[in-house]
Amino acid sequence: MKLYDYFRSSAAYRVRIALNFKGVPYESVPIHLVKGEQSAPAYLAVNPQGRVPALDHDGAVIVQSPAILEYLDERFPEPPFLPRDLVRRARVRAAAALIGCDIHPLNNLAVLRRLKAMGHEQPAIDDWYRHWVVTGLEAVEAMIEGGPFCFGEAPTLADLYLVPQLYNARRFAVPLDPYPRIQAADAACLALPAFRDAAPEAQPDAA
Amino acid sequence: MKLYDYFRSSAAYRVRIALNFKGVPYESVPIHLVKGEQSAPAYLAVNPQGRVPALDHDGAVIVQSPAILEYLDERFPEPPFLPRDLVRRARVRAAAALIGCDIHPLNNLAVLRRLKAMGHEQPAIDDWYRHWVVTGLEAVEAMIEGGPFCFGEAPTLADLYLVPQLYNARRFAVPLDPYPRIQAADAACLALPAFRDAAPEAQPDAA
Repeated sequence: MKLYDYFRSSAAYRVRIALNFKGVPYESVPIHLVKGEQSAPAYLAVNPQGRVPALDHDGAVIVQSPAILEYLDERFPEPPFLPRDLVRRARVRAAAALIGCDIHPLNNLAVLRRLKAMGHEQPAIDDWYRHWVVTGLEAVEAMIEGGPFCFGEAPTLADLYLVPQLYNARRFAVPLDPYPRIQAADAACLALPAFRDAAPEAQPDAA
Repeated sequence: MKLYDYFRSSAAYRVRIALNFKGVPYESVPIHLVKGEQSAPAYLAVNPQGRVPALDHDGAVIVQSPAILEYLDERFPEPPFLPRDLVRRARVRAAAALIGCDIHPLNNLAVLRRLKAMGHEQPAIDDWYRHWVVTGLEAVEAMIEGGPFCFGEAPTLADLYLVPQLYNARRFAVPLDPYPRIQAADAACLALPAFRDAAPEAQPDAA
């Protein structure tokens, strides 16, 4: 199992948590996004879209973190990160999708660079970033149940998305006081080695 | 089964296709996004995030189209819209996620309005829109297999995402000639009543 990875990519961070959580050993292949390694021919041969993460499992390459995460849960069912009840599964996936669709895509490197190319200075770009984090986290806070993880006593897919998003929120100094359930879930996750070992600063390619 | 819907929402359009494809009858409850009905207290009581779609199945409300679609495939397994083989499932989900994460979130109404509030005129906003559609469709064209649907002889989750995205691409006059596989899949889908009946112009709330 080989993970094409970048320490600060929150999509890659989700997958690192999932692999640790499932107890699946993997080799990390760092692709330095700021240096542009994702656009080098060698990496485009792996993932023509030129984004991380990509997972190589016995030669089958899977891209897009939502697809990789569902694959890992299907391929390595224990411990599960989706509840069995169908409505509860949907609630967990909805919280994950809110982070994965309504927050993160608006704040990735390609988007921030596009805003810069459109003439925006850093403070306006930072405002943009925080706007989507704040409106998104408000919605997540209302959707999750707590207990102490997002949905009860064990981490779920929602927690795998939440922790990397909170890492980003802190980098951009977004105040987290309005989100007590989110903060409790994040703290519960970060007490677990699966989450701690996946943190950006614990990766070999961290600056 | 009640779908909180808006004829031009591509996330709602995906869910309409899925419900038709599964043969599940539903009642459409239109929420007019341009008139702001998504922010009215009555709708916020259904979905505190104030977005469509939301699906009410016997009183259980499910939000976020990726979660709704997985729920429908689990709850109504026939006909399936995911292959059985785990790697193929992941490939289908990856194409869907690329559209659902890397194209659509950058082009939704809230984002376009934000750009306007940041001082951009309509031509710059249209350029933004087309940029994410073009770079995204290039990646999708490379990922799908054809045959004639995105992945073989039957529609999958990838087709459910593709058709609404192409509807948007045409609205913004994005040239589709560079994407022969995408065009073939779209045409194959639109020959099916499940897809045709879900089209924006076929909805009761279409202007």
